[in-house]
Amino acid sequence: MKNDEFKVIEVKSRILEDNAGAADAVRSRMREKGVFLINLMASPGAGKTTLLARTVRELKDTYRIGVMEADVDSDVDARTLAEAGAKVIQIHTGGSCHMDAAMTQKGLDEMGVDGLDLVFLENVGNLVCPAEFDVGANKRVMILSVPEGDDKPLKYPLMFQVSDLLLVNKADTAAIFDFDFERLRENVAGQRAKVSDASGEMQILPLSAKTGEGFESWIRWLKTEVSAR
Amino acid sequence: MKNDEFKVIEVKSRILEDNAGAADAVRSRMREKGVFLINLMASPGAGKTTLLARTVRELKDTYRIGVMEADVDSDVDARTLAEAGAKVIQIHTGGSCHMDAAMTQKGLDEMGVDGLDLVFLENVGNLVCPAEFDVGANKRVMILSVPEGDDKPLKYPLMFQVSDLLLVNKADTAAIFDFDFERLRENVAGQRAKVSDASGEMQILPLSAKTGEGFESWIRWLKTEVSAR
Repeated sequence: MKNDEFKVIEVKSRILEDNAGAADAVRSRMREKGVFLINLMASPGAGKTTLLARTVRELKDTYRIGVMEADVDSDVDARTLAEAGAKVIQIHTGGSCHMDAAMTQKGLDEMGVDGLDLVFLENVGNLVCPAEFDVGANKRVMILSVPEGDDKPLKYPLMFQVSDLLLVNKADTAAIFDFDFERLRENVAGQRAKVSDASGEMQILPLSAKTGEGFESWIRWLKTEVSAR
Repeated sequence: MKNDEFKVIEVKSRILEDNAGAADAVRSRMREKGVFLINLMASPGAGKTTLLARTVRELKDTYRIGVMEADVDSDVDARTLAEAGAKVIQIHTGGSCHMDAAMTQKGLDEMGVDGLDLVFLENVGNLVCPAEFDVGANKRVMILSVPEGDDKPLKYPLMFQVSDLLLVNKADTAAIFDFDFERLRENVAGQRAKVSDASGEMQILPLSAKTGEGFESWIRWLKTEVSAR
């Protein structure tokens, strides 16, 4: 398949004893370069790519944005994001279900971050493994989509404990799926109360990447974070 | 938490060189006992538990059914399924994102399968890792839910290559999510054509575990398989 818009690289996951050290190294390099790095995590089909494409379109005149698309296979999402106006690299994880800090560093090196303000790592669609690995991002943002249900914090506690912001996508379908935002809030708070390193209450923003409903709060959050980098 | 309805056990995943051997051992033991074992796999929130609860309610006068609920944590689904009328065991995977054959054997031993006709393993909600491990089931059934999108075979090829049957849940919401069954069929066929061990075309059954729409085809498939065990 011919492809002039973005690179595709292959990385391999290793259980690194020093993942924490590698993650800190990523963060300090990005700080030196003035790049704000976000680790975006969600289930398959939660709408990561649609949300990123709209985000890039809304912010491309304000920031220079890079996106690292981590996938087991394929490059369909990378195409969409390159078209939206981001600098894009496709990362194939070679079957691995998550990214770690070394894989992320390799992605950043291959993409090249000079001149970028904001970089998103779109992690592999999975609520289990990505939660376990600090990739060196400044913030971890999780997307839960309404059709998945408001009980997901009970099933995938770690993801809801380590994230800094929760975007609830497909919020326009809440009535169809009997999705209760209050119950979600309680379930999230219950999981975060169990661990000391969850930094208190997590902000929850309902939105729709398809219709744009609620998107202004997410854009505001991003601008606040990127300005403070 | 008090619980008289089902056991909760802890299992640990190991990368077993002999997972294939362990899987064959599970299959031959289940054959001796006259038990048909199904490995049910899907993303978080695709509707595994709702689908199983309806299946148990519809078949509990025909078969004695067991369900092994594999989760990183929690036992909310096990409660639902015990109430529906299944013999249930909750398996905590200790952070692991999938079940393997040894973990499955331990679950079957702890639950006890004597007198059961049909056992479902509800695997961890994840489209990546569970696809890599033969747990010793007679059939692998995958659920894709409509809100996840018809492009998922492109992103998670292995799951669509190794499964024997694809249930497309939440089919009643296809119009809302611009879900195209024909495109799904093409995407699935494209992935299966790439590998020699995918056993040709995979049957795809659209249904709704919530409304019951299309459920009769799934029940018919189950009855045919269980009778032939």
